[in-house]
Amino acid sequence: MVDDDGVIDVLAPAGGTVRDLLRALPGGPIDLGATNPRSTPGLPGEHVTGPDRKGWARRQVELVGKGLARRQEMLFAGAKADPGAGRRVLLVLQAMDCGGKDGTIKRVVGAMNPLGVQIRAFGPPTAEELRHHFLWRIRRALPPPGQLGVFNRSHYEDVLVPRVQERAPEDVWQPRYAEIDEFERELTAAGVVVVKAFLHISYAEQAQRLLARLDDPTKHWKYHPSDVDARARWDDYQAAYADLLGRGGTDVAPWHVVPADRKWYRDWAVAHLLRETFDTLDLGYPPADFDIERERERLLRTTGPSKVYGN
Amino acid sequence: MVDDDGVIDVLAPAGGTVRDLLRALPGGPIDLGATNPRSTPGLPGEHVTGPDRKGWARRQVELVGKGLARRQEMLFAGAKADPGAGRRVLLVLQAMDCGGKDGTIKRVVGAMNPLGVQIRAFGPPTAEELRHHFLWRIRRALPPPGQLGVFNRSHYEDVLVPRVQERAPEDVWQPRYAEIDEFERELTAAGVVVVKAFLHISYAEQAQRLLARLDDPTKHWKYHPSDVDARARWDDYQAAYADLLGRGGTDVAPWHVVPADRKWYRDWAVAHLLRETFDTLDLGYPPADFDIERERERLLRTTGPSKVYGN
Repeated sequence: MVDDDGVIDVLAPAGGTVRDLLRALPGGPIDLGATNPRSTPGLPGEHVTGPDRKGWARRQVELVGKGLARRQEMLFAGAKADPGAGRRVLLVLQAMDCGGKDGTIKRVVGAMNPLGVQIRAFGPPTAEELRHHFLWRIRRALPPPGQLGVFNRSHYEDVLVPRVQERAPEDVWQPRYAEIDEFERELTAAGVVVVKAFLHISYAEQAQRLLARLDDPTKHWKYHPSDVDARARWDDYQAAYADLLGRGGTDVAPWHVVPADRKWYRDWAVAHLLRETFDTLDLGYPPADFDIERERERLLRTTGPSKVYGN
Repeated sequence: MVDDDGVIDVLAPAGGTVRDLLRALPGGPIDLGATNPRSTPGLPGEHVTGPDRKGWARRQVELVGKGLARRQEMLFAGAKADPGAGRRVLLVLQAMDCGGKDGTIKRVVGAMNPLGVQIRAFGPPTAEELRHHFLWRIRRALPPPGQLGVFNRSHYEDVLVPRVQERAPEDVWQPRYAEIDEFERELTAAGVVVVKAFLHISYAEQAQRLLARLDDPTKHWKYHPSDVDARARWDDYQAAYADLLGRGGTDVAPWHVVPADRKWYRDWAVAHLLRETFDTLDLGYPPADFDIERERERLLRTTGPSKVYGN
């Protein structure tokens, strides 16, 4: 696959689109055990093995990122010409601790133009946020038309943490599923294309990453003792995620389970997820809403001798 | 100059720091005509000429960007350990149309980690913004501690546009200088390091860039007929800028005049401005606020056989 501009060589996923390969089937709890966190679905054959597959995948992410930047620019230009359409893309990232949300944003979103991206992180709700409906802070964080929004954690924390940590009874968090479903349909109707990705790491990989944080003084700031407390409830979290991924997905905004033990595959997959999503939008640059020849003449009339301050 | 991590080779500016070389002297109107927009102050000697100086400068910006990302991470880690200090960096960009604010953000800020950056653009004030003090929208857009904030236009528009466009009498915009001075001193006291850069292009270069937008259908969306109207008042804008750059700078937050006809020099200079600013902050990773050995033991106790959902 050669990108539209004829310059960028991006190898297409094998066996279908990444969106199709990783989509979680909605309806009920999914079987997370069926997805091996070390697997690499869709990775083109010749690059599944080989000593430099990691380097190859990273370079592909850079290339896909350049294509994403161009697509986002077209989305922005279109939104400027037709603000009423409200078109924008929202990437929702969820994962266990050390699942790689930050790394994905750094590598994939970092390959795009920062002007076109709005990133929002959601921690434990503040006192003010707790006084409002759980979607209040989410609505305030939506990207403006023409941009890619990225949610580093999201409204899905509100059906996850209260349940596993037993901070709220079931009749508080259960009804939120229906509200989230309604909210995401409303977003879709307002022009927001929602892409949801769960970065799926294994229990063993999480231990390695937490140990790496303890072993490296430049990573101590990323570690908190509560990470081990959450890890001790791994099975509870995975069960809650299995439920969330099956019930929180809809036809308009399905979940994708991204095998994430291999960081280079995770980034490759999310980059293609975004690329495929942008490609559903039928993007293009809008025509000029002014008379080009007349503007050229007006402009040329101003290009006399240099002015005092203009050198 | 080899960067602290011993990997990144960045060539230091020649003849002093970029901050010193480009600093506008405060006091009264500066002489903008004294700075040639095509000049390249501080560019290391062997790279001032040569066929690949553009490519060389772009690679340097990438390298400086990686160093900036690491410095910003240290700033973030420090802010997490000591939120009260409120330390953050704010880059304020001003320029005539086509001066290259967007391009600078794309190249320089785009080489950093998007997680650590907050970009805000200021257009003409909205109806709601007009009902508030002119600094209201500015205060709401300040970056959180630990981040690099970027202002794409700023509060300086409020001493510039009303004056040149004669939208407000002098007794409205003149007193704003004192308010801005006070505001920036207040920011500095609150831990915000303010870096201000005026991207200085020539009258001839602006014409070339506007023509390029008219000639390229993928750039029509960037053009607006009012750009030519503003260009017709070039001398008025330059005089207002000369005033702004001399009066709006203080010892704690001086202005820098960045020659910007050559995009690769502009990016190189702003990257070094940021680098030198971060280097005044005495950055480092904070020590662990937990018992490392104890955490390692707690963690290892959780690493039994794989769980059902963990593969």
